Amino acid sequence: MKPMGPIPTGFAADLDGKLLIGGVRADVLAEQAGQTPLFVYDMALIRQRVQALKAALPSEVGLHYAIKANPMPALVRQMAALVDGLDVASAGEMRIAIHEGGDPAHISFAGPGKRDTELEAAILAGVTLNLESEGEARRAVKIGEKLGVQPRLAVRVNPDFDLKGSGMRMGGGAKPFGVDAERVPDLVRFIVTSGAVWRGFHIFAGSQALDASAIAETQAQTIALAARLAEAVDTPPPFVNLGGGFGVPYFPGDVPVDLAHIGAHLAETLAARASILQGQTEFAIELGRYLVAESGVYLTRVIDRKISHGEVFLVTDGGLHHQLAASGNFGTVVRRNYPLAVANRFGAPAEETASVVGCLCTPLDRLGDQVGLPRIAEGDLIAIFMAGAYGASASPSAFLGHPSAGELLVNAAENVG
Amino acid sequence: MKPMGPIPTGFAADLDGKLLIGGVRADVLAEQAGQTPLFVYDMALIRQRVQALKAALPSEVGLHYAIKANPMPALVRQMAALVDGLDVASAGEMRIAIHEGGDPAHISFAGPGKRDTELEAAILAGVTLNLESEGEARRAVKIGEKLGVQPRLAVRVNPDFDLKGSGMRMGGGAKPFGVDAERVPDLVRFIVTSGAVWRGFHIFAGSQALDASAIAETQAQTIALAARLAEAVDTPPPFVNLGGGFGVPYFPGDVPVDLAHIGAHLAETLAARASILQGQTEFAIELGRYLVAESGVYLTRVIDRKISHGEVFLVTDGGLHHQLAASGNFGTVVRRNYPLAVANRFGAPAEETASVVGCLCTPLDRLGDQVGLPRIAEGDLIAIFMAGAYGASASPSAFLGHPSAGELLVNAAENVG
Repeated sequence: MKPMGPIPTGFAADLDGKLLIGGVRADVLAEQAGQTPLFVYDMALIRQRVQALKAALPSEVGLHYAIKANPMPALVRQMAALVDGLDVASAGEMRIAIHEGGDPAHISFAGPGKRDTELEAAILAGVTLNLESEGEARRAVKIGEKLGVQPRLAVRVNPDFDLKGSGMRMGGGAKPFGVDAERVPDLVRFIVTSGAVWRGFHIFAGSQALDASAIAETQAQTIALAARLAEAVDTPPPFVNLGGGFGVPYFPGDVPVDLAHIGAHLAETLAARASILQGQTEFAIELGRYLVAESGVYLTRVIDRKISHGEVFLVTDGGLHHQLAASGNFGTVVRRNYPLAVANRFGAPAEETASVVGCLCTPLDRLGDQVGLPRIAEGDLIAIFMAGAYGASASPSAFLGHPSAGELLVNAAENVG
Repeated sequence: MKPMGPIPTGFAADLDGKLLIGGVRADVLAEQAGQTPLFVYDMALIRQRVQALKAALPSEVGLHYAIKANPMPALVRQMAALVDGLDVASAGEMRIAIHEGGDPAHISFAGPGKRDTELEAAILAGVTLNLESEGEARRAVKIGEKLGVQPRLAVRVNPDFDLKGSGMRMGGGAKPFGVDAERVPDLVRFIVTSGAVWRGFHIFAGSQALDASAIAETQAQTIALAARLAEAVDTPPPFVNLGGGFGVPYFPGDVPVDLAHIGAHLAETLAARASILQGQTEFAIELGRYLVAESGVYLTRVIDRKISHGEVFLVTDGGLHHQLAASGNFGTVVRRNYPLAVANRFGAPAEETASVVGCLCTPLDRLGDQVGLPRIAEGDLIAIFMAGAYGASASPSAFLGHPSAGELLVNAAENVG
């Protein structure tokens, strides 16, 4: 038997042992949706997470949602009302953000390789462009002139440090993202003299880190870097996006980030910040995965229970075409098990070792490898947790011609209106 | 500088150094399609590959196309006319196969976790089901009775051996695919007594192998296994699908499969086969990737040329959302470079080392890592080869909200009508 990651808090069973998501039985949700596989996102858990962040972080630090983590329109609509800004990675995401109520003045667009059409759409909408290169800056200024619209331009900085222990390092050394720190002052001067609105800095050093000390240290380095850059151009930046990088526990042994530590350390760092950042500069943290990952459950039904050479295989109607990351094929070197459970016998003790596989005709399609589960029959629903981020939108949904997964947002009403 | 895989044969430049695909300039194709990124498949190369296989393989062995490798409808339509059968992995693929002219009598449907609705659709259409378990067999028989239609049922066998050196092992030991060989005779007896049409065996031991001796040896083992199973039920199988597994050279040092060796060895094996397989049994090889991978080119345009810490990054409008495998994030442990070139200076000598990255805001999105290229400017077209299989349909196309890639089939007219 191989270990699984920890089941996130906020999930429980009713008296019959049926998993509840947002207070509704998983099997009832599947019936309401009329299909499995099905992603269910519990908006109440997301709201709790936002509240926990607001409680822990200094009040002067805004909270942004990076919609790439989960661009489901209904969810983005709720988030737009909960957070201080939205971050997008394409014109497609920008359209969702604006359509779902995001205020363009609080939307920023980062991403290498922005097309001219994307720059144009963002400038017309009044969205801030986080510039990834000098070339992109020149194109944006030119397009602004052509349109007769002042572009709102921030500089994405490639920092000289990275976020230690992060799943993906996005700073330190040669990177395709942002502009090397030493070239940033010249770029800011170009923006200011071009007549564009300079919106400050975007500094993102890594993602999916669980070590609060490393995150806190990176935030301190980020604020120090922003101060050095501001001093070099002798102008306070209107805004500094401190990045994010808060990880979530996917795997055995992973522990949640210590928010209180981060908040306390950030308050100290801000209190001691350079004077150039003490005036009109606003700060924000940009989080995607950390806000939504734990709220989501991927429900998939067992179609076949089969034995091969003494091993039990539970073949489901889902698979890596919906939840690529859970199969271990996206950004991970060693495959480990996401937390999973039987939705109709939630909390029941393990009775056997089984592998949960998808319906795709490839050995890559394994959702749980030799995990301990109660004995499962055909028709049972399996819940794979940690499915709220980079699931439905980050998987090869057309692979092998199977149907798409459904998506449901539950407990959303509380915050509507 | 890091090495790249070999550029497949069949691609050349015109006198101006412009890459030709199917005799048409890549830049003209991009203009005709009205967009980049763009997948272009050269049907002439696929036809040559089919002809080479027919020439090398014994005439009594049929050739099937597994459409999962590239389910583009126009391509499937051409293939249906070129090969002896189509293999599908879902009801969705089955609909494409039939719609594009595939004869249901020569279509087989394999894949664990077939839903009842899929079994029903296949039985109604007269498509052969490659059964993955006893449970699936019972469901198929029951559905056939309900519909009043005789199901056509083959048994997918989990062989006791695997294809040595294959990229993905699909046999040998406990597997989610097929039925363990020792339980197959009982399952065949069940099928025959149920009144269904028994269509024989499907035995698939692995994929993406480059070693012709290993493939030939596996084919011999497969035929011997089919004979043992036939003898156990004392009935010749109408059909034996020998699987495929022929690999293609993606990476530095990879060499093409020696088809002549495989053909000669298979002829010998068949000549010496057990008498029970010498009567009415038909044989076929099922290939997907081997037929189409080398025919395809992914064209993507350079949006930004940027320098970070002295390294050159060419940021393109494409990325892993279209060509996940080329980024090294699908079924590979160590990232290696697919062959790529500048389409408008094809064959030009390397002038610098550069990394080709996609437009996604993630460090995973790297299409060429520190490769040697002629000096490239913004607007140049990059051609990434080996894009004909498991590209457009096997990538997370919704990731980050970017547009889908286009798909074009060139040189298709020759075989139409």
